[in-house]
Amino acid sequence: MLDNRDQAPVAPDRKSRSKLRRERDKQRMRGRVLDAARELFAVHGYEAVTMRKIAERIEYTTTMIYQHFPDKETLIREIVAHDFQSFAQEFHRCAQIADPIARILAMARVFVDFGVQHPNHYRLMFMSPPSSEVKQANLAAIHSDPAQDVYTFFKQAIEEAMRSDLLRPELDDPELLVQSLWSGMHGVVSLHIAKGRDPWIEWRSLDRISSLLVELLLRGIRRD
Amino acid sequence: MLDNRDQAPVAPDRKSRSKLRRERDKQRMRGRVLDAARELFAVHGYEAVTMRKIAERIEYTTTMIYQHFPDKETLIREIVAHDFQSFAQEFHRCAQIADPIARILAMARVFVDFGVQHPNHYRLMFMSPPSSEVKQANLAAIHSDPAQDVYTFFKQAIEEAMRSDLLRPELDDPELLVQSLWSGMHGVVSLHIAKGRDPWIEWRSLDRISSLLVELLLRGIRRD
Repeated sequence: MLDNRDQAPVAPDRKSRSKLRRERDKQRMRGRVLDAARELFAVHGYEAVTMRKIAERIEYTTTMIYQHFPDKETLIREIVAHDFQSFAQEFHRCAQIADPIARILAMARVFVDFGVQHPNHYRLMFMSPPSSEVKQANLAAIHSDPAQDVYTFFKQAIEEAMRSDLLRPELDDPELLVQSLWSGMHGVVSLHIAKGRDPWIEWRSLDRISSLLVELLLRGIRRD
Repeated sequence: MLDNRDQAPVAPDRKSRSKLRRERDKQRMRGRVLDAARELFAVHGYEAVTMRKIAERIEYTTTMIYQHFPDKETLIREIVAHDFQSFAQEFHRCAQIADPIARILAMARVFVDFGVQHPNHYRLMFMSPPSSEVKQANLAAIHSDPAQDVYTFFKQAIEEAMRSDLLRPELDDPELLVQSLWSGMHGVVSLHIAKGRDPWIEWRSLDRISSLLVELLLRGIRRD
């Protein structure tokens, strides 16, 4: 009985410690696989990458990868779902900015910064080829909300600016405004990712390009 | 002698007719291969597509394809060179517009229309993944000028508008202005190609989005 009582608290503790360690190792391993897969998908294209290539990249066996992910489709779904989540989280810090125009400006910066700091995330989320599993993974991720959140968050700021009479009165369609602003921000990021190192252009800094573009757009929508 | 003289003009004629026909057939065949390759590269990614897949697509044998193109790299180079040429040609019709602001507006329309009408061309020219043969083909095509032409053409219009005091005086860097306008136009086209059919957004027509974006940008750069 005593023995039992003495051992009882110890044994589960040891067990739970080792269970925690196993869980942590498992998560670390999953993270490494997802990171390697994201990079390979973004650079070589989803269809050209095999589970074997992902395994080779991080010096695992293909069997080890299959223990965690049944197939490539599961990988791309997890990656895109995770990345849309991180993307949406970045915008939380803009929520408390009261002035809607200042909020739009801050959100535009967050958008561009995210794309530039995570070009591979951005490629898979916003520059993926049509009719592939990447597309499906995108739609699945969006269906479970985070990208819609960001879109809605932008739209709310626009609507608030409209209600406060901050915008030119003829601009009365918030969807059209969000889609135009989104196009502008997307253009800055995606052109930078695709062409930003092309040597035949005297590139100005991304910061200057995106600041000017956003300034021009806001100047264009504000009431004089 | 007479016979000789009678036959002499006929024989080369027949020969040249059949040579012409052979040449025409060859060009037609090359065109079909290039079109199939462009579509497959754009949709599945360059690296995932093999010469065999291209052959299957148009029901040729792989051997027939190799008779015209030694490898995939030659294909992508020809495609991108050809497409940059077509792209540049589209802008010729804007050249005679005297007013530089009206010219920029017309060029922006040509840019967006080209992208929307040729999404596969556009993908390979402006949305291709980094560090692949597609990138190299792009740089080779640009080195032989047409894309640089379009960039320069935009820049000249901006510089002309500056000299005519049509722009806000603090906007004194034409490169920065071209790069910001280009980002805007690229954003409209590439977002449309990547997301334009996503059902979770109440998309406005591309024409309305691009008209508004370009209007906002021009309103933003013009002197009051």
